[in-house]
Amino acid sequence: MTEVPHVVAVLGQGVVDPDQPVVTADDLGLTRGDGCFDSARVLTDEAGTASVVDLDDHLGRLARSARALEIDDPGVEAWHDLVAAALAAWSTPGEAILKLVLTRGREWRSSGPTAFLSIEHLRDLCVGEVGPPRTITAVTLTRGHPSDAFRDAPWLLGGVKTVSYVVNVAARREAARRGADDVIFTTTDGFALDGPTSGLLVARDGALLTTPTGDTGILESVTVEAVLAAARADGWPTRHELVPVEDLYTADGVWLVSAGRGPVLITKLDARPLAVDDALAKQVAGWAGF
Amino acid sequence: MTEVPHVVAVLGQGVVDPDQPVVTADDLGLTRGDGCFDSARVLTDEAGTASVVDLDDHLGRLARSARALEIDDPGVEAWHDLVAAALAAWSTPGEAILKLVLTRGREWRSSGPTAFLSIEHLRDLCVGEVGPPRTITAVTLTRGHPSDAFRDAPWLLGGVKTVSYVVNVAARREAARRGADDVIFTTTDGFALDGPTSGLLVARDGALLTTPTGDTGILESVTVEAVLAAARADGWPTRHELVPVEDLYTADGVWLVSAGRGPVLITKLDARPLAVDDALAKQVAGWAGF
Repeated sequence: MTEVPHVVAVLGQGVVDPDQPVVTADDLGLTRGDGCFDSARVLTDEAGTASVVDLDDHLGRLARSARALEIDDPGVEAWHDLVAAALAAWSTPGEAILKLVLTRGREWRSSGPTAFLSIEHLRDLCVGEVGPPRTITAVTLTRGHPSDAFRDAPWLLGGVKTVSYVVNVAARREAARRGADDVIFTTTDGFALDGPTSGLLVARDGALLTTPTGDTGILESVTVEAVLAAARADGWPTRHELVPVEDLYTADGVWLVSAGRGPVLITKLDARPLAVDDALAKQVAGWAGF
Repeated sequence: MTEVPHVVAVLGQGVVDPDQPVVTADDLGLTRGDGCFDSARVLTDEAGTASVVDLDDHLGRLARSARALEIDDPGVEAWHDLVAAALAAWSTPGEAILKLVLTRGREWRSSGPTAFLSIEHLRDLCVGEVGPPRTITAVTLTRGHPSDAFRDAPWLLGGVKTVSYVVNVAARREAARRGADDVIFTTTDGFALDGPTSGLLVARDGALLTTPTGDTGILESVTVEAVLAAARADGWPTRHELVPVEDLYTADGVWLVSAGRGPVLITKLDARPLAVDDALAKQVAGWAGF
């Protein structure tokens, strides 16, 4: 199986051919974006032994997303078994992304939820690599709502990692049109939110800040929380607070953070330079385990 | 095939078993809600001859959605052929809904967009039925944004009928929790928008009003436009203008309008009564061809 760049496993079927269709035309995840997902990092050594980073944290977030959508989650044990089956079929050394998908299931049959996962190779693992930090450029794009839009409005599904992700995809295309790599979403009242597929991390005056969840509607980031916990263990204060967009330009460092690529330092925002502190960037990467 | 309650047809394959999976685990419509759809009404007579109402209008709107998402639409001719194949396999007398779905296609292979359709039986056709108008109750739920949120923000995909539809589904669940049938979405500045799967129509002082598209982000409704055109032909003035939520309570009639169920009169909104004028409701239903 070493030549296979992807593995797909379906609950109730186990590992299947990635080219085999797995979802019917009436699956509500497909026709309504009515489902949720989570993504975790997979590390595979040269011997082909693979492990998932923070799997239970990601399964916990998936279960919370499912609860918000009132979809029955198959449960930690069923997911563990499915992940184990997929990992047994996976041996490509390096970094990969595990994606877990859960949908409401079929509209025309009482089939129960649809649950499947995939593993996708991202890059070769450069053991002991000490290079420059991973960097990107970004643009700010409005989300069209104020920073408290999700207060008392659970039907807007703030904080729920649903598969209705098309605005995130469109925002990435807009960034590319503007010659940038990624996006920081903003509120109509002038605050930074997060990225289309990542959380926001800001270093400022010796503290680490990230956007609060809840009223803002942003997704909790497993990897941002892991960075903050590691930073606190190193004596850094951390805070969940709204950061005005203009303050990003005077910060000591601004990162977009995801499970797949870790913390990525933003060097330019809307074509204006941001602080680039290599030592700090390496420290943040280390806190994230990258 | 008369016993089959659903038909599914896939571009490149034709009609397939509705229980046969048609989409792979990496289809971006499934994993990212990155696709669009459209729904049209199907009428089938007792002899089993089926026709689609306003098919080309719905194909036109689907093509506009695809353009906004930068997905290659297979084109009117390909859709016509696929619809013809599906109609040939369909003979259940009554009303049905044709759903056309187009996604960006597979992430791991250069497969091109995924295009398929389904036909689902809705109800038996009662020829010549002259009964009370179809009615529902509704609640107002905020969309969390002001009425001009989509101005100069094309990445928010205002007016694009994407498959990232989960908030619409969640809003319907919230309505059910509150003991109502459906939802009128509202803006943070106090205007009525539309329903989760329908357009809004308001009768007031001898004119018919509907919410403007564009800055509001709402979807153009093929059926609302058909009603307005028919009303104008009968001498009624029609306008696209924002209606304050409070004005709904003093209107002569408020409807949610979709291709599948036509205009449905709202009798109560947030448990407060709305005007119910049977003669007017029948006139509106007639304008819609229901």
